[in-house]
Amino acid sequence: MFSEISKIPVFKGFKTSEIIQLLNTTRYQIREYEPESVIAHTGDNCNNLYLLISGSIRGEMNNYNDKSIVVSEIHAPDTFAEAFLFANKNKLLINIIATTHTKILIIYKNDLLQLLNKNIKILNNYLNITSNRFVIVTEKVKFLMIKTVKGKLANYILDLEKENKDKLSFSLGKTHEELAALFGITRPAFTRNLVKMKNEGLVEIKNKEIKILNREKLLKLLS
Amino acid sequence: MFSEISKIPVFKGFKTSEIIQLLNTTRYQIREYEPESVIAHTGDNCNNLYLLISGSIRGEMNNYNDKSIVVSEIHAPDTFAEAFLFANKNKLLINIIATTHTKILIIYKNDLLQLLNKNIKILNNYLNITSNRFVIVTEKVKFLMIKTVKGKLANYILDLEKENKDKLSFSLGKTHEELAALFGITRPAFTRNLVKMKNEGLVEIKNKEIKILNREKLLKLLS
Repeated sequence: MFSEISKIPVFKGFKTSEIIQLLNTTRYQIREYEPESVIAHTGDNCNNLYLLISGSIRGEMNNYNDKSIVVSEIHAPDTFAEAFLFANKNKLLINIIATTHTKILIIYKNDLLQLLNKNIKILNNYLNITSNRFVIVTEKVKFLMIKTVKGKLANYILDLEKENKDKLSFSLGKTHEELAALFGITRPAFTRNLVKMKNEGLVEIKNKEIKILNREKLLKLLS
Repeated sequence: MFSEISKIPVFKGFKTSEIIQLLNTTRYQIREYEPESVIAHTGDNCNNLYLLISGSIRGEMNNYNDKSIVVSEIHAPDTFAEAFLFANKNKLLINIIATTHTKILIIYKNDLLQLLNKNIKILNNYLNITSNRFVIVTEKVKFLMIKTVKGKLANYILDLEKENKDKLSFSLGKTHEELAALFGITRPAFTRNLVKMKNEGLVEIKNKEIKILNREKLLKLLS
């Protein structure tokens, strides 16, 4: 089990023996869940860090009209609930459900705080993970604020160009699925708009690389 | 100056004398900025925590079409840049500009890490601040994903009802300005839609308290 735990990003840079030593001085629980069982409910106070040792979980948001939508999927080895664990408003906004047979190590918030305080390497890893989550959700806000799909796409492509300064063409960096999720649209809508842009001569797509052909027209899509 | 610093949330629960002692063992800089001067540029690597001792700053996002929009305003005593400081992708997405005469205490990332490691009270405060920022931006994503203004409003009001379980009427909790920002719309558009809801008999608004009159119709706005 400890060799699986050592792959969880919060233990990056640790030897298995060091992890065993650390966990020996910390209170924790190991729990297992059957597929489709609920790990935590909407409205529960979230006072634990969950380390996913094996299996997959998903977060589902229940709308008031009894439809639920999957808002996140996490696969072992990874952690969840870490980014808002120490918030004043730490009630879960989603149901957390085991998608497969799942094994989880649970550390209570106060014990985690002690652990972070005791070990600067874990602290650094933890801050890195929560900061990365923050960057992802902030990027999502940025793209959700842009009203049109073409505007989102134009902005994303111009950002890519900036990051790849000296290159004429560059990879999209994410799958169509991931970009659709980032933009808050469906995958077919994403692909349809990208193809339209290509057909209208704004960009060229070859071997999964994109090249800007008409920057003027791209810029016009932003306003 | 230290009595001003003691009001910054990261030092919550500290006596001024304790803060002086802490800062004596940490490297930091104090910088002052004139109104409208740029504190940090888009694309800069962000390697510092900024503690705003006095004055106000704003974050401006530069669009490719030379328009810039203000995405955040922060007033002393507060910190900024804390939530993504330890991310892999820690390039600033905005220009940070002093709105007034501004005094800032700057701690370099690695020195901050030492400080957080050394003092569990600061660590707890820091995790609380970054977690709260995460909750705010996640809520924003939630409301941006809802397409119509009425849908956003209905969802917000039903959330309020859930939080105020045994009450028949409850405060909106935020100003119209703040709610417009949360929803990603203009303030007039927000107020117009709220008034429409009231006129259509879905809710009643009295003495800044809101009461649900027709839950059925509210639920219909969600789908």
